[in-house]
Amino acid sequence: MAVYTDITDAELEAFMAQFDLGAPLAFKGIAEGVSNSNFLLETERGRFILTVYEHRTDEADLPFFLSLMRWLHDHGYPSATPMPARDGALYKRVRDKPAAIVTFLNGMSARRPGVAQCREAGVGLARLHVATQDFAMSRTNTLGQPFWAGMFTGYENQAEALKPGLATVIKADIAAFEGLWPKGLPQGVIHADFFPDNVFFQNGKFAAAIDFYFACTDLYAYDVGVCLNAWCFEPDGSLNVTAARALVAGYQSVRPLSAEEKAALPVLAWGAALRFFLTRLHDFRLGGEGALVKPHDPLEYERKLAVHRAAFASGEGLVLFEAGA
Amino acid sequence: MAVYTDITDAELEAFMAQFDLGAPLAFKGIAEGVSNSNFLLETERGRFILTVYEHRTDEADLPFFLSLMRWLHDHGYPSATPMPARDGALYKRVRDKPAAIVTFLNGMSARRPGVAQCREAGVGLARLHVATQDFAMSRTNTLGQPFWAGMFTGYENQAEALKPGLATVIKADIAAFEGLWPKGLPQGVIHADFFPDNVFFQNGKFAAAIDFYFACTDLYAYDVGVCLNAWCFEPDGSLNVTAARALVAGYQSVRPLSAEEKAALPVLAWGAALRFFLTRLHDFRLGGEGALVKPHDPLEYERKLAVHRAAFASGEGLVLFEAGA
Repeated sequence: MAVYTDITDAELEAFMAQFDLGAPLAFKGIAEGVSNSNFLLETERGRFILTVYEHRTDEADLPFFLSLMRWLHDHGYPSATPMPARDGALYKRVRDKPAAIVTFLNGMSARRPGVAQCREAGVGLARLHVATQDFAMSRTNTLGQPFWAGMFTGYENQAEALKPGLATVIKADIAAFEGLWPKGLPQGVIHADFFPDNVFFQNGKFAAAIDFYFACTDLYAYDVGVCLNAWCFEPDGSLNVTAARALVAGYQSVRPLSAEEKAALPVLAWGAALRFFLTRLHDFRLGGEGALVKPHDPLEYERKLAVHRAAFASGEGLVLFEAGA
Repeated sequence: MAVYTDITDAELEAFMAQFDLGAPLAFKGIAEGVSNSNFLLETERGRFILTVYEHRTDEADLPFFLSLMRWLHDHGYPSATPMPARDGALYKRVRDKPAAIVTFLNGMSARRPGVAQCREAGVGLARLHVATQDFAMSRTNTLGQPFWAGMFTGYENQAEALKPGLATVIKADIAAFEGLWPKGLPQGVIHADFFPDNVFFQNGKFAAAIDFYFACTDLYAYDVGVCLNAWCFEPDGSLNVTAARALVAGYQSVRPLSAEEKAALPVLAWGAALRFFLTRLHDFRLGGEGALVKPHDPLEYERKLAVHRAAFASGEGLVLFEAGA
């Protein structure tokens, strides 16, 4: 998290007056999410999360995010849903920033996911892909493959400062993806940030997903790649193949991957590692100023990139599927 | 707040197994307190705060703090109470740090207290002083007047860096208090950190106090001084006399101050400003490393010090009481 924005009593009162949720009874900043400010808000009507959208969330995207969350909730996917204001709006403003109130969900995220949780994460991700197939809105993935060259421009020296020679390696990756990136695979709404922080469990089962503020339209199998990187690496930087196979098996128990998607997965996971490396490189420079969280270490994703690059170069891929599976 | 300590699933499970509170349903770091790590913990049995005690809290003091909280709760003072473990212990360990589970209290703290809230804060503080009169334990105020000279040693250059000439002024204050500090005033358990963050309101009335981790045995009127500094200054650094009179009037509605306490209040409030200046000077150097909060600005208390110093030098004092009140 983060609490970038403090809110005074008078600001909260004015904000709440636009909703039909009763008087606030408790209000505490919580350590969740890295992009926005989140508060636990208890009112006479229940428990909620108040999210204040900070610079990284483009206000123009909020109708997509909040409509998606509402749609998911209405279609049986376990996720927080925005509470509309009295006038029907899904968000209002506080301190001149957009802010929404969403339902509070019980559930525990896995701080160190085990194999069984990786499988459940795969189930939860696939359920999201299936649940959104009739959702009508779309949003370009502005952190997707076509944007990576632009995202790295101006950050070459910073990459070199992290590790000598890294800028050249990253540029070569970006160039390689221009040829390797798969075309024509199934696409739709992806979460794009399905990290352990954003997934809740209850009694060992997938219980809910939160934080849809990177959701966009892109390849489903790319979302699997993001998830593999986030869930299945060991602290020492190696891929836990057992966990990765479990995640993919969980995913396929709900939405089987096509042969083309399976074949593309090593490149997609490699690309997904690059996307998170690039945004962490950006955040690292910003230093999370004013935030209550430390920026993530970009080198964590540099190591994941190296694993995928080597697996691809070896010609073996990720070996995630049993023969014929 | 702060969340200095992260807790893994396995660590939480092992910790919770020592309590009879059921399985955890939700667990989130919260932005509350600056010294310890706090988590919202919802279990099958209710809602709690899990506090992990960090370096600033001496484990030897925990029996005092936690027994006090329990005693207050049992004697009708609205405060969070620790939940004992199955073996009766008021705290256990997580990640080799002491940690306790206390009840979650509803209530909103005042982010910008108004005059009416200052009055209620005075009421809440006096109720605390009255409620603890039969509490048997005591604890030396290790941030009290006899310790200030030692607390400043080694920090002279840092004070100078904040403001040229400041080290000399602080040393003169410390020396002055050695002569001026009152003796023989009523004493007992004081909160010693009764800041707006630590006080909850409901419907405009004092509802509860939290964070007793600076509580100690010292002069009651010194606690009023801490409170005046924390509640009654304007953002421009001036004392809001209306708010200060309201706070003292609220206090006296429950526990009238003696003539000696009233006479000592200007010196006690001046000293209270020095105590917070000194600890902020310490924290500022530490830089809150690893914390999710920025250290408070020591200069805020340097300005309060200057107000009290000038009021004392003028011979007028704080003018907090009507003639004969």
